[in-house]
Amino acid sequence: MSDPIKIGIAGLGTVGAGLIKIIQKNSDILNTRVGRSIEIVAVSALSKTKDRGVDLSSYQWEDDPVILAKRDDIDIFVELIGGEAGQTKEAIEEAIKHGKHVVTANKAMLAVHGQELAISAENNNVNLRFEAAVAGGIPVIKTLTESLAGNNIKRIMGVMNGTCNYILTRMEDTGLAYEEIFEEANQLGFLEADPNLDVGGIDAAHKLVLLSSIAYGTQVDFKGAILEGIGRITIEDIRAASDMGYRIKLLGVSTLNDHGLSQTMRPCLVPTTSPLAQLDGGTNMIIIEGDAVGQIVLRGAGAGEGPTASAVIADILDIARGINIPVFGQPAHTLNKVPSVNTSVENSFYLRLNLKDEAGILAKVSAALANYGISIDRIRQEGHETDAAPVIIVTHPTDRDTLNKAIFEIEETSAAIDTPVVLRIEAV
Amino acid sequence: MSDPIKIGIAGLGTVGAGLIKIIQKNSDILNTRVGRSIEIVAVSALSKTKDRGVDLSSYQWEDDPVILAKRDDIDIFVELIGGEAGQTKEAIEEAIKHGKHVVTANKAMLAVHGQELAISAENNNVNLRFEAAVAGGIPVIKTLTESLAGNNIKRIMGVMNGTCNYILTRMEDTGLAYEEIFEEANQLGFLEADPNLDVGGIDAAHKLVLLSSIAYGTQVDFKGAILEGIGRITIEDIRAASDMGYRIKLLGVSTLNDHGLSQTMRPCLVPTTSPLAQLDGGTNMIIIEGDAVGQIVLRGAGAGEGPTASAVIADILDIARGINIPVFGQPAHTLNKVPSVNTSVENSFYLRLNLKDEAGILAKVSAALANYGISIDRIRQEGHETDAAPVIIVTHPTDRDTLNKAIFEIEETSAAIDTPVVLRIEAV
Repeated sequence: MSDPIKIGIAGLGTVGAGLIKIIQKNSDILNTRVGRSIEIVAVSALSKTKDRGVDLSSYQWEDDPVILAKRDDIDIFVELIGGEAGQTKEAIEEAIKHGKHVVTANKAMLAVHGQELAISAENNNVNLRFEAAVAGGIPVIKTLTESLAGNNIKRIMGVMNGTCNYILTRMEDTGLAYEEIFEEANQLGFLEADPNLDVGGIDAAHKLVLLSSIAYGTQVDFKGAILEGIGRITIEDIRAASDMGYRIKLLGVSTLNDHGLSQTMRPCLVPTTSPLAQLDGGTNMIIIEGDAVGQIVLRGAGAGEGPTASAVIADILDIARGINIPVFGQPAHTLNKVPSVNTSVENSFYLRLNLKDEAGILAKVSAALANYGISIDRIRQEGHETDAAPVIIVTHPTDRDTLNKAIFEIEETSAAIDTPVVLRIEAV
Repeated sequence: MSDPIKIGIAGLGTVGAGLIKIIQKNSDILNTRVGRSIEIVAVSALSKTKDRGVDLSSYQWEDDPVILAKRDDIDIFVELIGGEAGQTKEAIEEAIKHGKHVVTANKAMLAVHGQELAISAENNNVNLRFEAAVAGGIPVIKTLTESLAGNNIKRIMGVMNGTCNYILTRMEDTGLAYEEIFEEANQLGFLEADPNLDVGGIDAAHKLVLLSSIAYGTQVDFKGAILEGIGRITIEDIRAASDMGYRIKLLGVSTLNDHGLSQTMRPCLVPTTSPLAQLDGGTNMIIIEGDAVGQIVLRGAGAGEGPTASAVIADILDIARGINIPVFGQPAHTLNKVPSVNTSVENSFYLRLNLKDEAGILAKVSAALANYGISIDRIRQEGHETDAAPVIIVTHPTDRDTLNKAIFEIEETSAAIDTPVVLRIEAV
């Protein structure tokens, strides 16, 4: 047996407590697998006295995570505090400067400061690892950096925010409105303190941009990602989609082409026969397409104590085993800075228009679409009790720019009462 | 850049040619990712002149793979010949003895000789890696050995033979008989030279026992696996299953309990809502359940040039990056030798009985089941034109041993014309 690997854990929330449970409960198999023991030296959190369901008595306590990060007697600093700035960032920076490996679940931090931190970690010859930051227990970072390292990655897609998926699937199951299920999710503690992180697609986009960087060898670019939340999805959209053989998912898609990197996180329609459509509740799914491997699908719990802690301990064990891979799969100084683009692949689109209930309105809409060469695959308008007539249109494939022009023209005619809902149909 | 890593490739079939294509085509990204180049030094195959669609002119040629394996100028011996004995085994053994790392796609070899080869590799401080041996491009070996190394693994399940899955799904799609689709698969070149390797479940079981070893820290035990092929599945079974909301899959299941290791590869019924039921054609799926991570599902192409070569190159890149993990995830000398058991978990079962068309026969069958406390969930008998009355019975949960006793009693009464078909219903 080699020497124990010594860790300090900052942040004792759900994931921190889950990590300690794994290390305490599975120590025998961990030791056998990596040939050395995992020793928790010290921990840090806001409250020293709070009961977290784990015995902390044999670990030293630090009030200040930055002090913990610099302790001489730790090899790995495990950051499970969260937040993309302040003390958390300082602690990670100090750990790196002091030659400590860092393991973190902090997607926001890496999505914003990933390039800078990766450069620093690699200059200091330490690991900075973040399997837990993307899709909980699903081993997507390792799959990209190692298992698919021989592939030219063509596309990444995925459902990466369990809360949004919970809301959308509960709406479909219960027939209740967005606002009602949003409140239910809130009561269940599923939402972040700032719910827009979830329902605005920000959290999911943080994850997508980390995957893009590894996949395409580009610098992490959160600002370049195009986000659209699920707040405008109504139960009518979900029903209309369902009737036509689709389900609505908050879907991330990233591709790299000669013009740049396209990263979108938007609600989309996917066929009910797609693996993506099978996802219920908090489950996440990542689909990776490579030139050699074809399509790989990874599915699992995207959050929660056990799954996230499973990813954190995997990173710790890799370090204990001496694995040292560049943070984003290739040296950070070789990552390209590329423009962000909104790739105009041709797709079918779902439109929901609230039209004025007047004669000739539908003719105006049809004319606007025809003016841009957009042909209609399906259209449906059902009985309505208000002045607004909700019309659902599914287009034949067109590109988003062209569609936007047609929609602008529709809005110009004052046919629509409010901004149309436009959802891409992904044939996955 | 570090020195190039030098490889020799034995076997230039589909996978070997695919590997060379990846190395030629993606050399820039490979070099950037691992910080050194991958250099093919020499190759070996049966025919030097056969056109394989790749340019071999810059590689040295060896007629004898054993000579290739021992060459002073290679770091890694890549074995893509196949077969579990003879020259292939000798080449691997010689490579290890001569301090070469070995990368192989040879599931049969490892399922039979894995323990011995792992001991030898670890004693010689070389890697022996086999990601490509299980489920093609799906990174299941790495997921188990590394990503889930913090977990106590509870169960592994999976569809791991694309040919069987092709046959079963084609039967369902076309309504044609097993024999007809078997012939179609044969014409398409999907079947091994000995088709029983596929349809008898042997190939899939080879894969399952490799996963079991890693998951449970036990010595590879192919002899202990319980196999049942798909040869007795009729189109009537597939239709009856479908009517009841199930699909039939050749499913591997392995679990470890206090009594030993249970490894079964058998056709089973899975609910149509299960991710397993969505699998068509040659796609593979592995489901891993761990105490921390919960359930992880991995899906992808289980065979073919690109996917399998993607897994081979991943192993090569890992070695180039200096990753050295024990062959089965923990040192081979620590792997336990455990008894093989047929775990009697309670399950519902599907029975198809060809009964004599006589009064009182069904009463005898019902009585036999009742004698063993087995209650019937559903029963159906449809019109028939022959003397045999096919009866489908779905039981409430019972264990297989008890069911076997009841079936034995049914056979004793001479009610059944032939041996009943018994398929487990897995609620995955």
